[in-house]
Amino acid sequence: HVSAGTVTTDGPDIVISTKPGLSVKTADDKYSFGIGGRIMWDYNRAELNGEADENELSVRRARLAFTGSAGDWSFKSQFNLGEDGSDAGDVEDLYLRYNGWGKAAKLTIGRQREPFGLEQLTSSNDISVLERSAITEAYAPPRTSGVQLSGALGKSLYYGVGVFEGDGEEDRSADKVNVTGRVAFAPLVDKGRLVHLGAAASTRLNIDVVGLEFAAVYDAFHFQSEWQQGDVDSIDEKLDGYYLQAGWIITGESRPYKDGKFKRVKPNGSAGAWEVVFRYEDGDGNFSDIELGNVDAEAYTLGLNWYYNNNVRFGVNYTDGESNNFDNDGEEFRIRAQFVF
Amino acid sequence: HVSAGTVTTDGPDIVISTKPGLSVKTADDKYSFGIGGRIMWDYNRAELNGEADENELSVRRARLAFTGSAGDWSFKSQFNLGEDGSDAGDVEDLYLRYNGWGKAAKLTIGRQREPFGLEQLTSSNDISVLERSAITEAYAPPRTSGVQLSGALGKSLYYGVGVFEGDGEEDRSADKVNVTGRVAFAPLVDKGRLVHLGAAASTRLNIDVVGLEFAAVYDAFHFQSEWQQGDVDSIDEKLDGYYLQAGWIITGESRPYKDGKFKRVKPNGSAGAWEVVFRYEDGDGNFSDIELGNVDAEAYTLGLNWYYNNNVRFGVNYTDGESNNFDNDGEEFRIRAQFVF
Amino acid sequence: HVSAGTVTTDGPDIVISTKPGLSVKTADDKYSFGIGGRIMWDYNRAELNGEADENELSVRRARLAFTGSAGDWSFKSQFNLGEDGSDAGDVEDLYLRYNGWGKAAKLTIGRQREPFGLEQLTSSNDISVLERSAITEAYAPPRTSGVQLSGALGKSLYYGVGVFEGDGEEDRSADKVNVTGRVAFAPLVDKGRLVHLGAAASTRLNIDVVGLEFAAVYDAFHFQSEWQQGDVDSIDEKLDGYYLQAGWIITGESRPYKDGKFKRVKPNGSAGAWEVVFRYEDGDGNFSDIELGNVDAEAYTLGLNWYYNNNVRFGVNYTDGESNNFDNDGEEFRIRAQFVF
Repeated sequence: HVSAGTVTTDGPDIVISTKPGLSVKTADDKYSFGIGGRIMWDYNRAELNGEADENELSVRRARLAFTGSAGDWSFKSQFNLGEDGSDAGDVEDLYLRYNGWGKAAKLTIGRQREPFGLEQLTSSNDISVLERSAITEAYAPPRTSGVQLSGALGKSLYYGVGVFEGDGEEDRSADKVNVTGRVAFAPLVDKGRLVHLGAAASTRLNIDVVGLEFAAVYDAFHFQSEWQQGDVDSIDEKLDGYYLQAGWIITGESRPYKDGKFKRVKPNGSAGAWEVVFRYEDGDGNFSDIELGNVDAEAYTLGLNWYYNNNVRFGVNYTDGESNNFDNDGEEFRIRAQFVF
Repeated sequence: HVSAGTVTTDGPDIVISTKPGLSVKTADDKYSFGIGGRIMWDYNRAELNGEADENELSVRRARLAFTGSAGDWSFKSQFNLGEDGSDAGDVEDLYLRYNGWGKAAKLTIGRQREPFGLEQLTSSNDISVLERSAITEAYAPPRTSGVQLSGALGKSLYYGVGVFEGDGEEDRSADKVNVTGRVAFAPLVDKGRLVHLGAAASTRLNIDVVGLEFAAVYDAFHFQSEWQQGDVDSIDEKLDGYYLQAGWIITGESRPYKDGKFKRVKPNGSAGAWEVVFRYEDGDGNFSDIELGNVDAEAYTLGLNWYYNNNVRFGVNYTDGESNNFDNDGEEFRIRAQFVF
Repeated sequence: HVSAGTVTTDGPDIVISTKPGLSVKTADDKYSFGIGGRIMWDYNRAELNGEADENELSVRRARLAFTGSAGDWSFKSQFNLGEDGSDAGDVEDLYLRYNGWGKAAKLTIGRQREPFGLEQLTSSNDISVLERSAITEAYAPPRTSGVQLSGALGKSLYYGVGVFEGDGEEDRSADKVNVTGRVAFAPLVDKGRLVHLGAAASTRLNIDVVGLEFAAVYDAFHFQSEWQQGDVDSIDEKLDGYYLQAGWIITGESRPYKDGKFKRVKPNGSAGAWEVVFRYEDGDGNFSDIELGNVDAEAYTLGLNWYYNNNVRFGVNYTDGESNNFDNDGEEFRIRAQFVF
């Protein structure tokens, strides 16, 4: 049909776009507004010592995000939708940000990610293995409420430091604050080339954690590794673990990287991009995905991703792991259909 | 005031519309994004044996829906808002859909309606009697999580078949799947004319259900009827019931029908459309609206609808019923104000 | 970058705007659709008799609002997002409104503010002191479900009258209705000048309340005061209290007023608007903000607001109060960062 009606504005000129969420901004960059979101449906089957513990189709993540800016201040409000109401309506991000000092220093007030961990800071839309590693799930802080200063100094140095409230609901008090900081340095960051180094630390109510990061990209190959250590107040020894992860994008794309974090693979051609990924992890971590819980274990994951287009991704993972101290073996098979808008 | 500012896009050409939700799509049909919703406010008064059991003004449904597509994949995310938080943020629909095979075969992954029942599949925005029949409320499956293949073969044949998770939360496991299928055939479907036949079956965790549908439209008159039977595992005999429903649109419009489902009456004139509707139902069903509960009963409903415009509808219903085996009489008076955007 | 793509519509001409939410309407005013919201982050520290009771950074309000109209009917759906899920997804406003009789008489059906109290009816985005007075928190009705007729007769007379459901969840029944009405009269309402008088009453399930309002604006100065009385069924004497509040906008703007309510200060210059505000309150009220609870007390509040632009506001308040009958002293320090879109 013919699209003939006019669309105008009664204020400053406006530029809109959809791919396929919504982005509206004034041409003078004074105001912007956006809507986006993600839907991830997973089928997963997990077994402990050969016995099926989980076998279900479920919403892994369903979120809507509203963003906007007026002059030097912006906001982000991202919340969950729920299959059974458990976390329905709960916010993930909910913050105000001051952008008036440019890229070098942004002040963020509210609920946000604490600056810790390459894998933790990479969006769940963009991670290569479907579920984050056992150390990230054990040591990397969740989103909390606080105040953070972060920024990018040139193309190679990124930092974030902030104070955040105690994690637990009972401890939600500014009397007990976490202090968390991270520095990431990318001596080489170019088209198809990356060397990334990172370090982070967080002193928290019941635990102090530190983490080291290394990542690299060479054309269609990418590698990333982290080591994290937790010093729990209530026990004597320090816990730690690490992972090594390597990916090859068969169709030849390079894994994108920006401001100290990886981004999602963007397919070059209309057939999409295919990627194989492998992860080895060992040490004290949260191995709940393979039904082992918080233990000292080692695990292997093999994954295949199909980036159908910039919005749709399918992934398959198989993980096999075993406890280092007990005679437990856990495995998981997981398929994901993901739409990001 | 003068609307003089320009609205442009920095990508492919865009077509937008509001009536009055929001629809944004690229002119090349590659991307689309939409926002819609429904608000229904009901006053209802229900009596059991002449004693008032309910007398309240309440939100019957308040939902927002976000939809979008990128290439051959689309999504729908529809969730509830709540007056008291009971189901606030819970999703109704939350699925990804593959549209690459055309109208004949769509693959839908996620939370969705199972293909069963003409009245169940007709949107609550579009049903003629304000509340669905006792058999639909007893036997037709709710929205569940699963995978469905559905489509329209020409203008006359519609089908859907899928596997879905067990209903209950405890049973939310792919070990116990429902298999549900429906075929609808419309040998006559034309302007102001319809003959519709349908059959569906679902084998479920604790019950197997089957249903038959018949519907017809002749100018301003429409008729629909369904019979449904449930074979509950835990009891010996099969339960069944049926309804007969007839409507007359006084202002002369025909009730619309599309792809195996009825749609909402669209008024021709600026005074809106007026419709009277009558339903008789009998048998084993869920007669909770008239306070009888799950029993063998019969009930009569008389309704009047005013379709003010394409978005706003007002309805009044009176239902009177009585238990076939016990000396219980239930009745309900219900008024609805509905806005669909 | 160049913004060259066209944006058209396939229906009637459309006018859109962002500042920075979204407003879309057809040029013929038949359809409109809008998205807006508010985010308020507070740090507050409260002490009872010198002992800290509260010390936290928390989301004070996070809401999204969807509005729209089709012909003479409109809707508003405003709901909460939650930090911990407590009220996530719960609606604040959720109503349908008939606008066909013009400004003089609007009929509103659904969940809405009852017409009572100048400070209660002024949006939380627009109040001068960060938290409402102890009498408003004690006597002014919350949002409830009901039917209201309201309007503006010329520029000087505003009224609202309605019937609403009983407040409590158990009492959510039309058997027990509240009847609430308010009249506001502004004999002087002009640029930088206002004299406002108001009176309201509500007869409720367990309490009858009345309130009187006075407000005035003279250039950069504004003043408002209310007295409210509650006649609780279960006790013999009537409870009452009042507040006196004065503000001075240092940068010279006048506090806006429209249709019987105050609006938020709009800064004239790019440096924003600065305002000092003082409130004295005395009598029976809800002094929970300063940890005194529902008592007879008096309190002083000193506040400073910085309206950074039309969307962003920062406020600081210090309140000190003491019980009139017991030897309790409460105080609170509160900072707010607010973004309204």
